[in-house]
Amino acid sequence: MMTTAILSSTHSSSASAFPPAKLHSSSSYGAPSILSLPTISKNSGASRLRLRAQVSSSSPRMIEKETVESHRPDTFLRDSDNGSFSGAGNESNSVRARFEKMIREVQDSVCSALEAADGEGKFKEDVWSRPGGGGGISRVLQDGAVFEKAGVNVSVVYGNMPPEAYRAAKPSGSAADNGNVKAGHVPFFAAGISSVLHPKNPFAPTLHFNYRYFETDAPKDAPGAPRQWWFGGGTDLTPSYIFDEDVKHFHSVQKSACDKFDPSFYPRFKKWCDDYFYIKHRGERRGLGGIFFDDLNNYDQEMLLSFATECANSVIPAYIPIVEKRKDTPFTDSHKEWQQLRRGRYVEFNLVYDRGTTFGLKTGGRIESILVSLPLTARWEYTHQPEEGSEEWRLLDACINPKDWI
Amino acid sequence: MMTTAILSSTHSSSASAFPPAKLHSSSSYGAPSILSLPTISKNSGASRLRLRAQVSSSSPRMIEKETVESHRPDTFLRDSDNGSFSGAGNESNSVRARFEKMIREVQDSVCSALEAADGEGKFKEDVWSRPGGGGGISRVLQDGAVFEKAGVNVSVVYGNMPPEAYRAAKPSGSAADNGNVKAGHVPFFAAGISSVLHPKNPFAPTLHFNYRYFETDAPKDAPGAPRQWWFGGGTDLTPSYIFDEDVKHFHSVQKSACDKFDPSFYPRFKKWCDDYFYIKHRGERRGLGGIFFDDLNNYDQEMLLSFATECANSVIPAYIPIVEKRKDTPFTDSHKEWQQLRRGRYVEFNLVYDRGTTFGLKTGGRIESILVSLPLTARWEYTHQPEEGSEEWRLLDACINPKDWI
Repeated sequence: MMTTAILSSTHSSSASAFPPAKLHSSSSYGAPSILSLPTISKNSGASRLRLRAQVSSSSPRMIEKETVESHRPDTFLRDSDNGSFSGAGNESNSVRARFEKMIREVQDSVCSALEAADGEGKFKEDVWSRPGGGGGISRVLQDGAVFEKAGVNVSVVYGNMPPEAYRAAKPSGSAADNGNVKAGHVPFFAAGISSVLHPKNPFAPTLHFNYRYFETDAPKDAPGAPRQWWFGGGTDLTPSYIFDEDVKHFHSVQKSACDKFDPSFYPRFKKWCDDYFYIKHRGERRGLGGIFFDDLNNYDQEMLLSFATECANSVIPAYIPIVEKRKDTPFTDSHKEWQQLRRGRYVEFNLVYDRGTTFGLKTGGRIESILVSLPLTARWEYTHQPEEGSEEWRLLDACINPKDWI
Repeated sequence: MMTTAILSSTHSSSASAFPPAKLHSSSSYGAPSILSLPTISKNSGASRLRLRAQVSSSSPRMIEKETVESHRPDTFLRDSDNGSFSGAGNESNSVRARFEKMIREVQDSVCSALEAADGEGKFKEDVWSRPGGGGGISRVLQDGAVFEKAGVNVSVVYGNMPPEAYRAAKPSGSAADNGNVKAGHVPFFAAGISSVLHPKNPFAPTLHFNYRYFETDAPKDAPGAPRQWWFGGGTDLTPSYIFDEDVKHFHSVQKSACDKFDPSFYPRFKKWCDDYFYIKHRGERRGLGGIFFDDLNNYDQEMLLSFATECANSVIPAYIPIVEKRKDTPFTDSHKEWQQLRRGRYVEFNLVYDRGTTFGLKTGGRIESILVSLPLTARWEYTHQPEEGSEEWRLLDACINPKDWI
């Protein structure tokens, strides 16, 4: 595996070609193939077909290929799947229906807030669906006045995961824990919102957030094995320069969201975030953290749905005031260069470590959707080291030695 | 494994944490930890120590940590290791001694030619050694008149490879092929030259070359198991725009070098190069290829030493005339943007697929040395697609569908 066991998950790793802990651990924008989106070409189908003639079709696919839609449907849920997840209840009140509704509302509100903050740029929307159910809405604002690249994607996926993945995902000690059980592929449902926002101004930080909900059916060939559900996600801030008040504000909003549900959440998910966004070969975090959690199912399901909703609704109050405050700050070429070097680190993390990205690239996910998380531009200088005591040095120090901001 | 079995090597893959085929398959600039170089800080030791305090020291190390030297030694070979590789013969005439001499001469001549072509930029040199023998010379020209980043590194390494790696490297059917043999770590010797040259002008192509020689001792606990040697390397061209005469010239020089030794070399190593520099998730090659070979030991050793020498000496005539011709070509912002997008692909290949880079990052190699192969700047646009029939489209088509240039 490319990624090391940085994530403090209780799941053990596996030498299988399919990395169990990765399926449901993605935190990157649109990164897992289960949250992937279609490539929309500016060009004719004919030339793309020609140019793409040699793309390998041998990559493993857990999901069907998507098709572009001209209209947004009211829901990406299957009409007829009420019975397929026992306990899901009435479709419109099911957790998955309410989660889909929530992420689509958050997508609308975040995109509106970003367009308002940008003043000029508008989101371009791509809608797509899959024949057997599921689909998504991809919105990208590129080259705005404030944002050089901002992507906000939602998706709903019906797929099948290999039994190894199911075994890794479920709590230990349950019925299918026995390695001798020959379980078949496990149907799963996943829905998520995923976003990376890269502003132009070097004093305005990059933001990433992602909230997702999973359900699995019971394995068909393993009677008694339970079906599973879990929540994952997080919101984290990646500035190039530290304004203490900004970072404190950002973490305070995360803490407030957490504290409404459990006082242990913020300290635990703050550390989880610091651990996850670790660029091991640099000995640095990608940024100044926030919160990150995964495989969360050992609380009341309704409570966790409310918690994920609260976190997703906290994105605007956590981030927009910071962008508003910093978007017009005057800067020099040297500030911009430092921002570009930090963007290089963002690229390194996403391509080398991010589970969603690396898994998506391996499994034939939609490349444009996976890699829209990359910044518009990035920079690498040989042996660059900020001057001791400089603002750049202070940022680097905080990425190396994570701090308590509140 | 992150990388897929694109390399048409005869070695089988392994699920081990140590990727056998990767140790000796690197083609990236200074990429394998066995060819890695020290970080030279612009800053005081104290602040670096502070900033680096939390770097994990748990990464596997097959080689000792290096120390910076103020002078270039005549050789990085051990004084006293004549007996350690049976058959190596007199030190000064041994293959490893002659290979080291060759790569250092090539480093000198290539750097001189690059400084002459640049007109302004000068190489900065870092020299380093390891206590138990070995060391290297790193030369980087940054922000010249013609080159935005040019690195030319040589290194000599004494290390120990895990027995799995040794088993993967040796021909099948030999004594230690039996998986039951409990072989210990295998001492190895490696020497190589590695270089990536990124010019500023979008019409002047990026060049990469790397030539390397390996020897292993016999495993200590497996009597009768043979010691091994092999050569690897290649030279490849990555333009953003195609000038047919340039690409033909480049491939013709590679073919001439090959044809002096074996008529099968050029077609075989040309295809190997196209296969190796494949960005699987894009369905594209990084560039327009050249030659690439690895694990080459089924020819006379003297012949292969001469072949590697011929290839390395072909870098200047293959590349410098192209840079001279294109370095001052007028260009627009749009040409530059396309170059930057192709540089993004270069980053994707090196961080996601290049065996030397990914292995170096995992094993705690020197990051600045590994990542000096990355361009100074790169760019990613959402769903960018060149217009059909454009020059950009033509380049992309040639990266997707490799051509015979001569």
